Amino acid sequence: MRIVSSGTASLTFPALPDGLDTPRVIVDLARVARNIATLQDELDRRGIALRPHAKTHKSIAIARMQVAAGAKGITVGTLGEAEVFVAAGITDVFLAYPLRADGPKAARLRALHAAAPALRVGVDSAGSAAVLAAAITGSDRPLTVLIEVDPGNRRTGVDSPAAVVGVARAAREAGLVVGGVFSHGGHGYWTGGALDAGTDEVRALTAAAEALHATGIACTTISAGSTPTMLTAAAGAVTEMRAGTYVYGDRQQWALGAISADGCAVAVAATVVSVHGDRIVLDAGAKALTKDRADWLTGFGAIVGYPELVIERVNDYHGVVAAPPGIARPSLGQIVAIVPNHVCPVIDLVDSVVAVAADGRAEEWRVDARGRSG
Amino acid sequence: MRIVSSGTASLTFPALPDGLDTPRVIVDLARVARNIATLQDELDRRGIALRPHAKTHKSIAIARMQVAAGAKGITVGTLGEAEVFVAAGITDVFLAYPLRADGPKAARLRALHAAAPALRVGVDSAGSAAVLAAAITGSDRPLTVLIEVDPGNRRTGVDSPAAVVGVARAAREAGLVVGGVFSHGGHGYWTGGALDAGTDEVRALTAAAEALHATGIACTTISAGSTPTMLTAAAGAVTEMRAGTYVYGDRQQWALGAISADGCAVAVAATVVSVHGDRIVLDAGAKALTKDRADWLTGFGAIVGYPELVIERVNDYHGVVAAPPGIARPSLGQIVAIVPNHVCPVIDLVDSVVAVAADGRAEEWRVDARGRSG
Repeated sequence: MRIVSSGTASLTFPALPDGLDTPRVIVDLARVARNIATLQDELDRRGIALRPHAKTHKSIAIARMQVAAGAKGITVGTLGEAEVFVAAGITDVFLAYPLRADGPKAARLRALHAAAPALRVGVDSAGSAAVLAAAITGSDRPLTVLIEVDPGNRRTGVDSPAAVVGVARAAREAGLVVGGVFSHGGHGYWTGGALDAGTDEVRALTAAAEALHATGIACTTISAGSTPTMLTAAAGAVTEMRAGTYVYGDRQQWALGAISADGCAVAVAATVVSVHGDRIVLDAGAKALTKDRADWLTGFGAIVGYPELVIERVNDYHGVVAAPPGIARPSLGQIVAIVPNHVCPVIDLVDSVVAVAADGRAEEWRVDARGRSG
Repeated sequence: MRIVSSGTASLTFPALPDGLDTPRVIVDLARVARNIATLQDELDRRGIALRPHAKTHKSIAIARMQVAAGAKGITVGTLGEAEVFVAAGITDVFLAYPLRADGPKAARLRALHAAAPALRVGVDSAGSAAVLAAAITGSDRPLTVLIEVDPGNRRTGVDSPAAVVGVARAAREAGLVVGGVFSHGGHGYWTGGALDAGTDEVRALTAAAEALHATGIACTTISAGSTPTMLTAAAGAVTEMRAGTYVYGDRQQWALGAISADGCAVAVAATVVSVHGDRIVLDAGAKALTKDRADWLTGFGAIVGYPELVIERVNDYHGVVAAPPGIARPSLGQIVAIVPNHVCPVIDLVDSVVAVAADGRAEEWRVDARGRSG
């Protein structure tokens, strides 16, 4: 994989609104709408459902834009996220996580299942299937689970078709409905083959579904998902795609080739607060940009319009930028737009964003599910 | 500097409360009280004031514990933090940051200055001094500033005694009161000489104060600060220490030698949600532990009681732990305590923590200034 140092010359972002109080997260709604429409149209053409992962935006308003454009429902990563969206009326939710529903989570799952009949939950072990079933004991309808398959990501998910069958049988015996299988091709982020990971997803999901069919368990949902694999995994037997980051884009997705240079819909606005010698300091640090940086990215974000500047260090409230002599740099007090490396954790830091419409009108939009990490 | 791989055998944390909904940040109040008393007593003995940095805990209750133990006031890093603590009656606040008080921040500074007469603000340039003065135009009393001196951290701050005098003169001409100088010896975190950085602070601050005295400007405050340098910089002409992380401690401070193995007062409780082959997965990922990891630390936190396990990867909601055969590991569904690498950004992710008293009683405490990053 190429090392992306500065090299972000081509990354663009629309002009920032006036009068910003930095640091501030800016969302360009025209780009959001285009990102939503582009993927939706392509998946419609392929006959594959889109169930975007809402952990990226954590926003009821953005989720409604996705559903209005044709998304089948949403994906979430935590019970807390599911609760927020279900309460807002977005009830076709897949919790794509091997939820361990004991302790306080048992009652939360039971309440969510009562409020959202279409709710489905991930599982990757017989043990956690039993705990899921116990949590909804007494409910008047069963809970549907999808079994997670590991396509090579080495995170969660079972690693063989035989193991899928084992978990499926245990889930059925516990009283759960097996609705299908799902995967996340995240290994592309760290192995250098982000797009190819989609092929792994299709292969692993197909084998899992075939093994289930052979034992008489129908897979109505075969769900793949990640932004780098959103096109390569939307193929074959796959019925559903769960990309999340595509809606906002970020520097990492651009570097992976998953979005175009004008596809980044989010930037962090920051002010130059200090200029000394060969460095400048921005008021966006680790509590605004995070320390998320893949090994193959240099710096903690791309400063739009200053492609040769590198954000070398971030402390809590300081972003330290190497600015050698002879290279263009913003001046003291100037506000710049930074495209973050990874947008998902950046959004989770802020209670609200500034959403800018195509006509330039800016509104404050809540990040409804911020901090709902469990 | 030694590389801290797993090697966290000696790190301890008290037993977790029952019935936790993970991931959850746990604060052990007995350890907090001991950390507060230990540093306060030592600085009292040296005749140096303690003004702890509140960005670590962002908690009104913890700040009150610090003040009750003898802290002179608090330090903050942003206007937003200052607003929260001043509104709660903690008004002796130093904003240790080169604030750029234009745009919406001008009115915010004016209101804060009116509410908190003891407020002081950092400055490191003539340009930002003029903006500070303009922001409080019309106020019935001047604003006091401390001039930031760079002790070798290469972040903010002026880098010579002559430059200190230049900024001080500009500040006075603009109508500000110059109250002294301050530094942050953060370069120890990345140069491998964390404790020695305190010596750099004392030297840089002394030279700056002498240069100001020589031009007839008295330095009533000579303020140093960071947790690694909290003892080495509390010396000579220094009048005030601004350590922050000492109150909670973390794996990084332990590795730097700044706190003891039983000094970590914060852990993230997490559940084992998946076990496959040579790995286990926890429900604490980058949105619970952050991706903060110094180059000389291996893994994204220390799992208490499992010193050989390494949290190799964190995704938003997944912490992937290498667990080779033959090494003790927690089982599916078990809850573990993780001492985070860097506690400050971890606290900023959560709206509340579980504060556990010495008698075992657990209460939910708000993180009052969470997200106030500007």
